[in-house]
Amino acid sequence: MTTAKIRVAVAGPKGRMGREVVKMVLSDAELELVAAVSLEKGEDAGEAVGMGHCGVPITDDLELALVESKPDVLVDFTTPQLAVRNTRLAIEHQVRPVIGTTGFTPDDIAELDKLCRERNLGGLIAPNFSIGAILMMKFAAQAAKYLPNVEIIEYHGDQKLDAPSGTSVKTAELIHEAREEIRQGNPNEEETLEGARGAYYHGFRIHSVRLPGVFAQQEVIFGGDGQTLKIRHDSYDRAGYMPGVNVAIKKVMTASHLVYGFEHFLD
Amino acid sequence: MTTAKIRVAVAGPKGRMGREVVKMVLSDAELELVAAVSLEKGEDAGEAVGMGHCGVPITDDLELALVESKPDVLVDFTTPQLAVRNTRLAIEHQVRPVIGTTGFTPDDIAELDKLCRERNLGGLIAPNFSIGAILMMKFAAQAAKYLPNVEIIEYHGDQKLDAPSGTSVKTAELIHEAREEIRQGNPNEEETLEGARGAYYHGFRIHSVRLPGVFAQQEVIFGGDGQTLKIRHDSYDRAGYMPGVNVAIKKVMTASHLVYGFEHFLD
Amino acid sequence: MTTAKIRVAVAGPKGRMGREVVKMVLSDAELELVAAVSLEKGEDAGEAVGMGHCGVPITDDLELALVESKPDVLVDFTTPQLAVRNTRLAIEHQVRPVIGTTGFTPDDIAELDKLCRERNLGGLIAPNFSIGAILMMKFAAQAAKYLPNVEIIEYHGDQKLDAPSGTSVKTAELIHEAREEIRQGNPNEEETLEGARGAYYHGFRIHSVRLPGVFAQQEVIFGGDGQTLKIRHDSYDRAGYMPGVNVAIKKVMTASHLVYGFEHFLD
Amino acid sequence: MTTAKIRVAVAGPKGRMGREVVKMVLSDAELELVAAVSLEKGEDAGEAVGMGHCGVPITDDLELALVESKPDVLVDFTTPQLAVRNTRLAIEHQVRPVIGTTGFTPDDIAELDKLCRERNLGGLIAPNFSIGAILMMKFAAQAAKYLPNVEIIEYHGDQKLDAPSGTSVKTAELIHEAREEIRQGNPNEEETLEGARGAYYHGFRIHSVRLPGVFAQQEVIFGGDGQTLKIRHDSYDRAGYMPGVNVAIKKVMTASHLVYGFEHFLD
Repeated sequence: MTTAKIRVAVAGPKGRMGREVVKMVLSDAELELVAAVSLEKGEDAGEAVGMGHCGVPITDDLELALVESKPDVLVDFTTPQLAVRNTRLAIEHQVRPVIGTTGFTPDDIAELDKLCRERNLGGLIAPNFSIGAILMMKFAAQAAKYLPNVEIIEYHGDQKLDAPSGTSVKTAELIHEAREEIRQGNPNEEETLEGARGAYYHGFRIHSVRLPGVFAQQEVIFGGDGQTLKIRHDSYDRAGYMPGVNVAIKKVMTASHLVYGFEHFLD
Repeated sequence: MTTAKIRVAVAGPKGRMGREVVKMVLSDAELELVAAVSLEKGEDAGEAVGMGHCGVPITDDLELALVESKPDVLVDFTTPQLAVRNTRLAIEHQVRPVIGTTGFTPDDIAELDKLCRERNLGGLIAPNFSIGAILMMKFAAQAAKYLPNVEIIEYHGDQKLDAPSGTSVKTAELIHEAREEIRQGNPNEEETLEGARGAYYHGFRIHSVRLPGVFAQQEVIFGGDGQTLKIRHDSYDRAGYMPGVNVAIKKVMTASHLVYGFEHFLD
Repeated sequence: MTTAKIRVAVAGPKGRMGREVVKMVLSDAELELVAAVSLEKGEDAGEAVGMGHCGVPITDDLELALVESKPDVLVDFTTPQLAVRNTRLAIEHQVRPVIGTTGFTPDDIAELDKLCRERNLGGLIAPNFSIGAILMMKFAAQAAKYLPNVEIIEYHGDQKLDAPSGTSVKTAELIHEAREEIRQGNPNEEETLEGARGAYYHGFRIHSVRLPGVFAQQEVIFGGDGQTLKIRHDSYDRAGYMPGVNVAIKKVMTASHLVYGFEHFLD
Repeated sequence: MTTAKIRVAVAGPKGRMGREVVKMVLSDAELELVAAVSLEKGEDAGEAVGMGHCGVPITDDLELALVESKPDVLVDFTTPQLAVRNTRLAIEHQVRPVIGTTGFTPDDIAELDKLCRERNLGGLIAPNFSIGAILMMKFAAQAAKYLPNVEIIEYHGDQKLDAPSGTSVKTAELIHEAREEIRQGNPNEEETLEGARGAYYHGFRIHSVRLPGVFAQQEVIFGGDGQTLKIRHDSYDRAGYMPGVNVAIKKVMTASHLVYGFEHFLD
């Protein structure tokens, strides 16, 4: 018996993440690249990512590509401006969305989920496809029940614009939900240099380090009587997200509504 | 309404862990120290640990102490030679054992559990009372399902006799049970200095570091595509076990058989 | 040939550091405890630190103790209020001061050094006696010449009042002196939670973590193209300063003026 | 006044390191790529590394390339088989060698240095061009004088063939030379799993961790009374060596003999 390959379209194949997606799809015998859609059309998608000719030219009209290539799944790493429309188009053409682009509002997600449910179609919107990062967040929330004193340190490259990082804020939310709220530290604490104690979030602190040579790292530190527990995730390159995207493409085939957060695909 | 205090006897109050137990019991208003039994008798138990007179002299006959002081719980941090007998004595006098001493065989545990069940009595034998260490082991087993490539590094003081540590072997067992067995690494790997790759355990490696200035630390490192996940527990002093012993004394009051492993009291 | 022991007086023998000093002096065959001076007098100094009777009662008059016991060295871990006067008294009685108390002004130090030079007497005032901490600072300054992008993270117990720590500010000063000044990071960086990026110091950042279970730790992280270099010092207890105090007592015997900073005794 | 660019030839431009060298040379306005020599000839060197046409075709005859393009410096990241001959050829044509290839014997180095000195020509053979790695080794040797208890842990990808790594052995040599020899640890220590304590080297231990997702990391840990000092270098990609190669190309212009080890160019 042969199983049919899963037909995959990629939106944003020339972006940093999209390139990795194209490479991953071309490297997995269970997946077939059937379309690649970008504002810059023309080049062969395989050649564009340095993997040799693959016979799929990059086109610039997503709707046409969905109609003609009949993909099972659309993987989208584009921009907040494009992604909501792309997702809606995919669902309307019975194509399962796997979306790594950020910028969806809760209303967007609710509406898109409704569209999916009407068509009994699986979908995933995930700000983070890293298995390691998601385990880190899960463990951090569990530990906070027993060791409520905690701080988060996150490390990114020195050109990152915002601090703290999205992952650290998401982790902080999960910790906050899991633990009894306490205001940590000495109530009379004073900063002799402003900002030393980091960002305050519901009783605990987040610190953002920015240095060249760092890609994306985070450490969650719990302190108790005579002990500390640390959970640390180090991400070295964008390839680190691809095992997660690969799992998502396969799991979304058997889902029947839209899910927000890759953690829901992990158990 | 006032709740009666839990009456606690301590075996081994002059040992390094036993001293901490006495201090912890004397410091918790919900607990009452009613006996302290050591080979060296005479001194007041409070004075012996530098906390001032507490009115409980150290005696040297455990059975007599159990009969006279009627404790609810016996906490035992003594020696493998003494602990099995002490535990049996406690159960026979309807006193719940909370045992931190190692050296119990599976047969010992089965027999003692039978005695407890006959009396509907709670009990705990635990090689490790550290909440942080137990969370580390639990998370390591969970992560091994998704990130099967793993190594363990454990750090202890330079006078420790055995390597690898008991906690690292216990962690390795839990990882081994959780993951699909794989033989990690390059099959043609060669050690130019023997032992560099550490101890082999069911396809993965354990490394033991011994240095002065270290009390007890362990790091479990998972590696995957472009990422690592680390779970690290640092224990700085024996006081780090006391929150766990305190929880155990309270939880054992409502148990009705003997449990092996503090993790069973954590959920 | 037998060398005479160095005669040591201890001011503040009942304080947390002073206790460790008394223990260290009593444990080194090259040193002899000859006096111990505290506001609480009476007890035997050895018994007060749990080491058994040593024959040196704690007295409460430093000047009298210096005259009667004729020490070679006075070790002082007292309070900013007492330490300046104690140091002056010691020098006037031809006793070499080894001072771990903070709070000396540059004027105090200049005056006390002048007194030492007049008597050809060695002396040391040091905010930090930890060999590891001093090496960390030295290496950090060296690395900053080649890898100018740097951040400091320091960790202390959750009851510490001030942030950032004295050691981290001292390290930052040394880095600032060693490197070409650059303003690190993205000029358009924004904090979505105030304080996330830590305290600003001459172009780089200091972060202060406060958690129970931590004694004193610091990590200096340098980032460059595709690499990071970290220098980390972990201090687990006050005993960690004693090897430094021991070295200081011996080195001060051959010095002929007052030195500020233990690093000057390390090479 | 305009300074002439330094003319650079690259041997091995299609290898993993060689590609980075070509990119680095093309990106630095003070350098000019004048030749690229590989067994696979034909392609434009810039296009081969994905940087666009640069006008320098890859050729396959090093001697001819040296004669025709008259480089100031030859950068060689090839194979042990080729590198010795390439270095000799370069020197004979008055071209300064900057060699990152391993496999040179002490005799090779002595002979090549002699050839350089006869021609008053600078040269460098370096197993490691990473500024961070070299600082780590330097600091480790310095710290070993004061904190002689030490262990090394090195981390590499899981397909690496040999353990321990070359850098860890080099670090161990430097530590061994710097410290008084001591045999660390408990003399009665026993391994219950063979290899747990790592590789033995002159009284201390080296541990080799191999995991996917790791490029090259090393931690040197010193332990003393109540403290540890750690020096850690993390290398994330081959680009991490390029700042060092860049410095080497510029420094070799003013040297007048052959040097072994990039550390000699650092101060």
